[in-house]
Amino acid sequence: MKKILLFGEPMALLTTTSYDSLDEAEMFKKTLAGAEVNVAIGLTRLGHQATYLTVLGDDPWGHYIKKKLYQEGIDTRLVYYNSLFPTGMMMKNQVIEGDPDIYYYRQGSAFSNIDTNLIDQINLNDFDQLHITGIPLALSSKTRETSLRLVKKAREAGLYISFDPNLRPSLWPNQTTMIDTTNEMAKYCNMFLPGNNEGKILMGSDDPEKIAVYYHQLGCDELVIKLGSQGAYYSSKNETLTVPGFNVKKVIDTVGAGDGFAAGIISGHLEALCSKDMLIRANAIGAIQVQTLGDNEGLPNIEELNTYLKKSHCEANPESWI
Amino acid sequence: MKKILLFGEPMALLTTTSYDSLDEAEMFKKTLAGAEVNVAIGLTRLGHQATYLTVLGDDPWGHYIKKKLYQEGIDTRLVYYNSLFPTGMMMKNQVIEGDPDIYYYRQGSAFSNIDTNLIDQINLNDFDQLHITGIPLALSSKTRETSLRLVKKAREAGLYISFDPNLRPSLWPNQTTMIDTTNEMAKYCNMFLPGNNEGKILMGSDDPEKIAVYYHQLGCDELVIKLGSQGAYYSSKNETLTVPGFNVKKVIDTVGAGDGFAAGIISGHLEALCSKDMLIRANAIGAIQVQTLGDNEGLPNIEELNTYLKKSHCEANPESWI
Repeated sequence: MKKILLFGEPMALLTTTSYDSLDEAEMFKKTLAGAEVNVAIGLTRLGHQATYLTVLGDDPWGHYIKKKLYQEGIDTRLVYYNSLFPTGMMMKNQVIEGDPDIYYYRQGSAFSNIDTNLIDQINLNDFDQLHITGIPLALSSKTRETSLRLVKKAREAGLYISFDPNLRPSLWPNQTTMIDTTNEMAKYCNMFLPGNNEGKILMGSDDPEKIAVYYHQLGCDELVIKLGSQGAYYSSKNETLTVPGFNVKKVIDTVGAGDGFAAGIISGHLEALCSKDMLIRANAIGAIQVQTLGDNEGLPNIEELNTYLKKSHCEANPESWI
Repeated sequence: MKKILLFGEPMALLTTTSYDSLDEAEMFKKTLAGAEVNVAIGLTRLGHQATYLTVLGDDPWGHYIKKKLYQEGIDTRLVYYNSLFPTGMMMKNQVIEGDPDIYYYRQGSAFSNIDTNLIDQINLNDFDQLHITGIPLALSSKTRETSLRLVKKAREAGLYISFDPNLRPSLWPNQTTMIDTTNEMAKYCNMFLPGNNEGKILMGSDDPEKIAVYYHQLGCDELVIKLGSQGAYYSSKNETLTVPGFNVKKVIDTVGAGDGFAAGIISGHLEALCSKDMLIRANAIGAIQVQTLGDNEGLPNIEELNTYLKKSHCEANPESWI
């Protein structure tokens, strides 16, 4: 079985149990959050072996996160504690319509204070693929340096590298730094997974063909461009392909949909699916995830995924989606 | 009406709704916490005008705290926000017996990063009394410097200064620093309020008479020494007095009892009660508070306090407690 390494900051997520604002709400439910956590959970539910590399505070949130990652079947031997700094936390409220309010308590976290030499202690030959996002690039100079060092070392070690830019302008000092750093990172990656709206910010166009040309020139072998409910576009040296999205009747919570999509792409790549099946899988997981409350609770296992695919295949005109 | 100034770090307190550990618990209820907050709430419930001087993060916990202080009737015009750092937070679990687990997320908080020049912007002539605790002495070099500057300036301005050492060894770098700094602070204060177990740590004896002699020599005019369920001991130049505690059938939660006691002493001092009545009031508030769950929810208003005093007076042999 192929082994995948993920790098990022898992957080304790406190969600209000009412529709009050974050200031007003009195009761909070704790769950596990973080873009890379969602991808890792998506992968293990599909039967893959994911190892999570991170640093947590040696505190109640940190202990909870490590235990929860383990319970999700994620390999936690590269989860480190640093007792000098706290574990990152985020808050979210419940909303009847529209996007929730989100607040991060992650500045100065144990992960933000990561020892940049940590990468040198890890045997990257243990892994076949590395998946990273743009979030650790944004958090602090230490996480940025560590991300870049990890990607360069992974490339030297021959790992296949997938990269989801996950643009979060609020975490960056300014837009120019966000754009330049993200594009610098893309140069070292085999597969780049932007949304077309992220392409607009990063290279000036939301046209998937133009985005693909730009990043092929930067050095990416494969491009998967998310087009929201329109589906996704794939491009390699030999092939381009658009796969439309699934019809979703009621969107409940969009958080985690992009991460579920990434889990679909990565698992498809690890299983050597053809590009069409890889995109169908990714679209399906994104569609399932938006119909469930929570950041990762809706991510399907392989049976649930196949059931959804079969059901959608029967209900729809197959020609319209394959 | 006399005006009292309090200085310290209010925190959002997350309490588990189950008896699980802090790591395991899933649901948390948010309330307001902090030793000085409890004292301030105790004072306003007794009809006094308390102004709270602090710095909060410009975030959901901070906005909640400022609003809640205001709702409790506390003057919040000296509550400042600093958007660069987070608001302090603490966690506590529910326990059937014994002390709860407590965890602080306050290192690097907005209050810990207080601007030491803040004191120079405040007109201390607006106030009659200052109450401080040893907690800001422990939190950071900035809060320590600010505490000492505040006390010196308050003394120059002629305010009466009460000081509860509130020893929290876990917040201090080491025991020697804790002892030396606390005793240094005591020199600038009119009234010192240690527990006799704190006397043991600070000057080597838990004998209230010896503790009183030591701190009178350091410069304190009045000493109130808490003796737990045994009551309290008072000492001034002209008078010494012991007042036994109230009989409490079932202790539910000891947190906040010492702060309620301090509110009793401070309010008694502001109302020019005789020392015996001041100690009876403080003991009564402590006794009421330990019979209620929560850090400050049990603190009585003046009617509740008087009802408790009358009831205890009737039930007990009056000679045994007065």
